[in-house]
Amino acid sequence: MTNETQNELVFLPLGGSNEVGMNLNAYGFGPEHDRKWIIVDVGVTFGDQSTPGVDVIVPDPSFLEGEEILGIVLTHAHEDHIGALGWLFDRIKAPLYATPFTAFLIREKLRDHNLAEEVELNEIALGGTVNLDPFEVTYVTITHSIAEPNGLAIKTPLGTVLHTGDWKIDDEPVVGEKTDVAAITKLGDEGVLAMVCDSTNVFVEGTAGSEGDVAKHLADLIVPLKGRVAVGCFASNVARMDSVIRAAEAAGRRVALAGRSMHRITAAAKSVGMLSDVQPFLSEEEAKIWPADKILYLCTGSQGEARAALSRVAEGTHPFIKLGQGDHCIFSSRVIPGNELPIARLQDKLADRGVKIYTERGYPGIHVSGHPCRDELRQMYAWARPKIAVPTHGQRRHLIEHGHLAKSIGIEQVVTPRNGDMVRLAPGFAEIIDEVPAGRLFVDGGILVEEQGEALRERRHAASNGMLIVAFALDRRGKMVSDIDIRSVGLPGNTDRPLEEVLDHLAERVEDTVRGLKGEALEDEIVIEQAVARTLKKASQKVWGRRPIVETVVLRL
Amino acid sequence: MTNETQNELVFLPLGGSNEVGMNLNAYGFGPEHDRKWIIVDVGVTFGDQSTPGVDVIVPDPSFLEGEEILGIVLTHAHEDHIGALGWLFDRIKAPLYATPFTAFLIREKLRDHNLAEEVELNEIALGGTVNLDPFEVTYVTITHSIAEPNGLAIKTPLGTVLHTGDWKIDDEPVVGEKTDVAAITKLGDEGVLAMVCDSTNVFVEGTAGSEGDVAKHLADLIVPLKGRVAVGCFASNVARMDSVIRAAEAAGRRVALAGRSMHRITAAAKSVGMLSDVQPFLSEEEAKIWPADKILYLCTGSQGEARAALSRVAEGTHPFIKLGQGDHCIFSSRVIPGNELPIARLQDKLADRGVKIYTERGYPGIHVSGHPCRDELRQMYAWARPKIAVPTHGQRRHLIEHGHLAKSIGIEQVVTPRNGDMVRLAPGFAEIIDEVPAGRLFVDGGILVEEQGEALRERRHAASNGMLIVAFALDRRGKMVSDIDIRSVGLPGNTDRPLEEVLDHLAERVEDTVRGLKGEALEDEIVIEQAVARTLKKASQKVWGRRPIVETVVLRL
Repeated sequence: MTNETQNELVFLPLGGSNEVGMNLNAYGFGPEHDRKWIIVDVGVTFGDQSTPGVDVIVPDPSFLEGEEILGIVLTHAHEDHIGALGWLFDRIKAPLYATPFTAFLIREKLRDHNLAEEVELNEIALGGTVNLDPFEVTYVTITHSIAEPNGLAIKTPLGTVLHTGDWKIDDEPVVGEKTDVAAITKLGDEGVLAMVCDSTNVFVEGTAGSEGDVAKHLADLIVPLKGRVAVGCFASNVARMDSVIRAAEAAGRRVALAGRSMHRITAAAKSVGMLSDVQPFLSEEEAKIWPADKILYLCTGSQGEARAALSRVAEGTHPFIKLGQGDHCIFSSRVIPGNELPIARLQDKLADRGVKIYTERGYPGIHVSGHPCRDELRQMYAWARPKIAVPTHGQRRHLIEHGHLAKSIGIEQVVTPRNGDMVRLAPGFAEIIDEVPAGRLFVDGGILVEEQGEALRERRHAASNGMLIVAFALDRRGKMVSDIDIRSVGLPGNTDRPLEEVLDHLAERVEDTVRGLKGEALEDEIVIEQAVARTLKKASQKVWGRRPIVETVVLRL
Repeated sequence: MTNETQNELVFLPLGGSNEVGMNLNAYGFGPEHDRKWIIVDVGVTFGDQSTPGVDVIVPDPSFLEGEEILGIVLTHAHEDHIGALGWLFDRIKAPLYATPFTAFLIREKLRDHNLAEEVELNEIALGGTVNLDPFEVTYVTITHSIAEPNGLAIKTPLGTVLHTGDWKIDDEPVVGEKTDVAAITKLGDEGVLAMVCDSTNVFVEGTAGSEGDVAKHLADLIVPLKGRVAVGCFASNVARMDSVIRAAEAAGRRVALAGRSMHRITAAAKSVGMLSDVQPFLSEEEAKIWPADKILYLCTGSQGEARAALSRVAEGTHPFIKLGQGDHCIFSSRVIPGNELPIARLQDKLADRGVKIYTERGYPGIHVSGHPCRDELRQMYAWARPKIAVPTHGQRRHLIEHGHLAKSIGIEQVVTPRNGDMVRLAPGFAEIIDEVPAGRLFVDGGILVEEQGEALRERRHAASNGMLIVAFALDRRGKMVSDIDIRSVGLPGNTDRPLEEVLDHLAERVEDTVRGLKGEALEDEIVIEQAVARTLKKASQKVWGRRPIVETVVLRL
């Protein structure tokens, strides 16, 4: 099907299509064996309790290693779009392009990874163009839940792709400009070959709502309150921060920031001239002694993160914030799936201190999503009029539903690739022409490892089943010349069945097993270790109903 | 404050107040040192990923051990009300009382724990009375999301307590009777001292909705469908099962059951005459070859449980159900908090097979809650008119909010005890008079252990940090007489930094450490082991940024 010398334009998602977060998209141009690539976004996703010891997960970029990469273009500063730069840069080296706010935060990230010197980071003005021949990439201002969100118009000799990035249509974005409808319509007039588009809220009818409305709701809620007020929100949402600060000012309250990312983001925001006309924040020391009715704390930790500000407030261990009876905590945020239990526990602890809790559920105006609902998707398709719809940024369910929506409003071609599916956008009918390695890499103990790697599998097994460790010494002829030292990790006993007694019993079984071995078997440590492990696993199954990891150490003297 | 010879009526929650599930309530009557007790419900809660290896969690009944317990009265058959009977019966021995459907399921549970012979299980008719002098306990028919839900009117010489159990007001419960308003109003007329009441939905305005409406919605949805239909729901909701079966019959479909609890519950339901006029279920073998448009599968696993029917269908490993393009899966269930991610993964896998998914979100009529919303709470207070409101069955936030609601509608006294808080209901003003040991016990490796026990703590630590095991032999004088055997469990390496090399390096550090020890230190295994552990933890911190569990085995020859 593929002509090997013909130029093709291909789209290749390596992250973000099939799962939430971890966006890494590549566009290739050229004949099959001589493609030039640009990368759009290099994001992380986060581990959860199913990945103990693994906090950060990044897309596997192996396919792109060794390819000719002209540039890495970042749409906006959310971690699921820029968070993997530090981890993956060495494998996909290329100049970076980002607008000023995003660039500020990337710079910090590169410093953390000691890459600041090595990386070429180019700051592009809003609406600016990057020439990466044969790609010409123009930033298109859109609206989202962060400062400086951008779509990308990617022009190539075979047509233009509108890569939406994360977006919604917000006519009152509070900070930054409105969606550049003129630019998008103009692209549509000139002809958009394909639109690669956010699928997050495809199951939600209507529209996401405006930051401007949230500002009003927050002011209405906060102004009449007595007592201390804490507001939890995503730090990266500078508009939200701005709205909270203005509500505080309207209420005669000064604002104190709690949590490292609040400071990171306000620094980035100030560097591009945002938050310039608000009263200075109180320092921690000032906040400590400021009158209750005159203060508002802007806090990290709305997702119940154990070490963030709100959790420490709830535990009563925060260095300068104490909340109690008569105080208020407003969650101007949504619940990220997977965080339901930690958030419930956090809110419960606060309620237990007498703090009144306000969430989106009881106070629907205090948060809006940053992603397009169905009416917004329809509107964007009407503006851009692409020939091809490529749903991305969502789980499989979302991509499929987004495909149905696009078809239903008359988009000619729909392709819903999985991560690793290479889509030929031109020439010809759009189709998946190849499947390349894709997957997730885990940051485990400071290094990148395979998702299916042995270390995490062993840790998970140990977490559910515990471990037995047994060691003894044998002489050359296989005679036991030491005591049998047996220990357990993570195996329970109680007064009816003390662990000591169980271990003594297991040690006897080990001794019997070794005694039962004859001749050559006794010359081979591996054979002995396997025999002992079999005995212990079987015995453990009877005692605990589970098969622990068994490490048998035979020392040969 | 307490007169030691005066009779008192006390309420003591040992589970269910502060957390969801795991209900265990006790009522005591008599002077402080000579109380007689009845227990209401003995439920479990379930472990999650934060408790690896622990699936079942039960309330700690220690306070009641050795007390005079007259009887254990069960309100209904949900696991959070009867699930801990098998685990705790030996500690709180007393005759059991339950209505027939509940008794059927308790009997099975007792058989599983080899307690069937030992336990006196009394079957009480709906509306029946149990005399446990000085308590007289009358079953009051209410409506909920299970067959045979009951509240309890607990009469004592010091007043009557209405213990609601789990309830809502359903005027069309599909199976069973409507709420016995006459009985509750009569109790109110005679005077209710205290109402101990479900708080689950106190944050939800309005009413929970009726099973009758769900039946209509399900029929409307199912009748026009082509292709295979699977419905996931909670097996214990016999009304829901009935509604699905009737929708299937209206659609000309036969029903096949998938999942062990479906069979358990249909057996229990049939034993009390429910589901008697429906077509027989298809066997698995029949279902396998039945035409697609003529079948409906009633499935367990709506919470994404890995081994339940729906997950196996999604994985393509179910022995007789295959779903694909053109088929349908209806989730007639809610998302239990904490199950969001597994459910999302399950639905995603089904969608990926081409199965259309229907959930409460897009099809709001296909599920209703079994717990009272605010209007229903108000109604119940209006019927029963208790002097004292005792919110229970909820997290702290819910109990507090429920207390506010009760106050706001004019209830004189509100007490919101935590688990372990003993509330004196009479005589005098209701108040917490004592705090007794309460907590959770974990079923770990088949035995009951303390929540804060060492085994789970070690397993969690191992899950996040991995382990190092090192063993060597020393002679009497401390000379190393074997190789150093060092192994890791759950610690990663990669090609840049192979694990082998790291372990060799660590072995050298161990050797240096032992060589560095002098004199008496070398005579004491504990001292040696601690020195080695210190070395290895420090070195691991440098290599992996974490401190694994270290087991050092010194064999002395």
